[in-house]
Amino acid sequence: MQLKRKDVLAISDLDKDEIEFILDTAQSLVEVSARDIKKVPALRGKTVINLFFEASTRTRTSFEIAGKRMSADVINISASTSSTTKGETLIDTAKNLESMSPDIIVVRHSSSGAPARMAEVVASSVINAGDGCHEHPSQALLDMLTIRQKKGKLEGLRVAIIGDISHSRVARSNIYGLIKMGASVVVAGFPTMIPVGIEKMGVHVAYNIEEAIDGADIIMMLRIQKERMDGALFPTDREYSIMFGLNLKRLATAKKDVLIMHPGPINRGVEIAPEVADGPYSVILDQVSNGVAVRMALLYILSGSQQGGSI
Amino acid sequence: MQLKRKDVLAISDLDKDEIEFILDTAQSLVEVSARDIKKVPALRGKTVINLFFEASTRTRTSFEIAGKRMSADVINISASTSSTTKGETLIDTAKNLESMSPDIIVVRHSSSGAPARMAEVVASSVINAGDGCHEHPSQALLDMLTIRQKKGKLEGLRVAIIGDISHSRVARSNIYGLIKMGASVVVAGFPTMIPVGIEKMGVHVAYNIEEAIDGADIIMMLRIQKERMDGALFPTDREYSIMFGLNLKRLATAKKDVLIMHPGPINRGVEIAPEVADGPYSVILDQVSNGVAVRMALLYILSGSQQGGSI
Amino acid sequence: MQLKRKDVLAISDLDKDEIEFILDTAQSLVEVSARDIKKVPALRGKTVINLFFEASTRTRTSFEIAGKRMSADVINISASTSSTTKGETLIDTAKNLESMSPDIIVVRHSSSGAPARMAEVVASSVINAGDGCHEHPSQALLDMLTIRQKKGKLEGLRVAIIGDISHSRVARSNIYGLIKMGASVVVAGFPTMIPVGIEKMGVHVAYNIEEAIDGADIIMMLRIQKERMDGALFPTDREYSIMFGLNLKRLATAKKDVLIMHPGPINRGVEIAPEVADGPYSVILDQVSNGVAVRMALLYILSGSQQGGSI
Repeated sequence: MQLKRKDVLAISDLDKDEIEFILDTAQSLVEVSARDIKKVPALRGKTVINLFFEASTRTRTSFEIAGKRMSADVINISASTSSTTKGETLIDTAKNLESMSPDIIVVRHSSSGAPARMAEVVASSVINAGDGCHEHPSQALLDMLTIRQKKGKLEGLRVAIIGDISHSRVARSNIYGLIKMGASVVVAGFPTMIPVGIEKMGVHVAYNIEEAIDGADIIMMLRIQKERMDGALFPTDREYSIMFGLNLKRLATAKKDVLIMHPGPINRGVEIAPEVADGPYSVILDQVSNGVAVRMALLYILSGSQQGGSI
Repeated sequence: MQLKRKDVLAISDLDKDEIEFILDTAQSLVEVSARDIKKVPALRGKTVINLFFEASTRTRTSFEIAGKRMSADVINISASTSSTTKGETLIDTAKNLESMSPDIIVVRHSSSGAPARMAEVVASSVINAGDGCHEHPSQALLDMLTIRQKKGKLEGLRVAIIGDISHSRVARSNIYGLIKMGASVVVAGFPTMIPVGIEKMGVHVAYNIEEAIDGADIIMMLRIQKERMDGALFPTDREYSIMFGLNLKRLATAKKDVLIMHPGPINRGVEIAPEVADGPYSVILDQVSNGVAVRMALLYILSGSQQGGSI
Repeated sequence: MQLKRKDVLAISDLDKDEIEFILDTAQSLVEVSARDIKKVPALRGKTVINLFFEASTRTRTSFEIAGKRMSADVINISASTSSTTKGETLIDTAKNLESMSPDIIVVRHSSSGAPARMAEVVASSVINAGDGCHEHPSQALLDMLTIRQKKGKLEGLRVAIIGDISHSRVARSNIYGLIKMGASVVVAGFPTMIPVGIEKMGVHVAYNIEEAIDGADIIMMLRIQKERMDGALFPTDREYSIMFGLNLKRLATAKKDVLIMHPGPINRGVEIAPEVADGPYSVILDQVSNGVAVRMALLYILSGSQQGGSI
């Protein structure tokens, strides 16, 4: 099988078969990182450019490790050293990189749609590693892989997403993906954090966190992204924690086999209590591990290597 | 054949045979980046250090990709993380890096002569990746390679270089190289941009851009380097564009098979109109592609690998 | 043989046999960097993360070159791009990186004890690449390797360490190591620079530099770390140089086969005169070369590759 497109820009683009294909491929690659020699030759001689216009340790590192474990040549470019500081347009940056014959360009950008714009002008595959408030498809894929590993399925599950849904590309990508895969999604947050009309996406809006987690198979806590907020969405950290933080007391009302997820980095004591983040229901670190596998899968599939290269 | 020197510091140092040898080697390496597996083992076990005291996406990335496609270990060092911020002298930095046994050190520096100074104190090969207003030899080599590909030769061609010649290491390197290879060079720019006595280099100074491009086989537009200008060389962007920008109207007076070149990143609407940069005569992106090939060739030749290693 | 621990956090942890084992392994790896093909397959498929919360060209580059010459995949993370700027705790950063299955994490941090704290929560090996005023074990190991190469032994040698002992992790690691290996250590510096009670470590405190270097086999000059000083430990550079700088006049009173060492980067004319740094007794650049070998050895030993992989 192949994807129906050269790029992975948004979960909203992918159909159910494509998502399953990526998750199956990622699952088969999980064991590579558990080997003594964590390296497969599949992408030898391929060039992967990590083009990050926003700082990110976690995602950049995850893609870099994924690329190197697949034997690709990985080139990191961060915005602070980029030609964009010399006034070059995004399209010119894309075309210039393309002229160096990369196979895959991984792009993170603060503007929604920037990776899609680049993808239009290059023959290389583009992976959106997070664009503004739009999408973060590899995050949703690693979240779905984690759920599937723990629950054996996605269909029929109830997933509660708590936090600033409006500004979260993680939430958007997960909502698209989970609903396509047959899960149901309920969200909760301050009214300023819930997009108007979100019900049209098939999402239920809970009145409060208690309602959202009642009966949920998975509770996905979003990060309070202080660095991304330009207005005052809520009074204080403490107020947020009281209203929407996940603590042991609230966890006690959840299902006995609930999974606690968080895209990280976590703000301990704000959106999630330390005892919950580090507790037995938390799969937060599994998410990170699966991130490497999902990114290996994306690089592998998009490079076309799955038609000939060996894992 | 070999170069007559261990370093590539300036086009002014190289003789015609050496330039041709580099261009021939680069031409033979162009196809590597078009392969499905873009990797040759020639520099396996060689260490290339990219030492950039000035920010540069394009040139650093080009050298890094070139090194990795030749299978070298590539180490990036940027000035912001360099010991020079701890007060170490340039010579001490060079000697310290040398003690780690690199094969090639690629240096960009804001001071003219810095790479040459380093080259004196290390046994490794040094490649000047741009030093102050002095030279940028790999840029001139990739420009000459591009011209040779499109025109089949360099000898007898007329090349117009438009812009701030005085402060342009790209212009200096090209002037030295093109004249050595038998081309003729004409320049145009505001009087403040034309070095006094440039005619002694064998260059003709045109009265205006119209005169310069009349009969030119190649028009090389220089970037207005706002970040490098410390004084007011010209009134405004708009004034510059009116006087020296290359637009469709001016292009209409040029030869029908003229090539438009620019070292990038381009300032659209200042020194070059978007319709010209993206038009059929533009070889700006070919220049970028050839940059990788030229840098692969320089690394290959200087590493001594061409005497035994396989491409 | 193996180390008795999974991490190398401090020389104070290591016993004499372990130090000798590391030095022997490093000595056997010195020749790799002198080869035409500077690469051994020992760490192929291993992942080494260089996690630097403090800027460092020299140490990061040394570890990166060491890792690549051992064929490891090396990932650089610098604090400026780290999640810690998003408020993540050190422990969470450690656990997250661990979830990506690295084999070795090399950590530099401005806080004493940070690498040890990380080592407690990860299964990967942690190498302390310098933590606050605590230790810098790979520096002491490369210093001891250099002394052993030049003197054939460590036991019975007299080592003078001159400078700000109180704030120097280099001094601390060397004092622990040298004394364990049977050398004697004498220190000198302004009274503000000598820790109270240092004699309990087995160190002799000299009254002045003249007394310290009298009869010394090795003079180890410490860097005046202007960027690390928050108070006024001494009046001016000039005053420091007059009181504790190593110049030719003072060197003339030393043993005829004395070695001059410095961890770099040097402040020429402050703690060390240029004629001394560049003179025949100086082994400063040998230290840098040995740094790569020592780090190759640490990576090799900690990765467990010495039980099966080939050099």
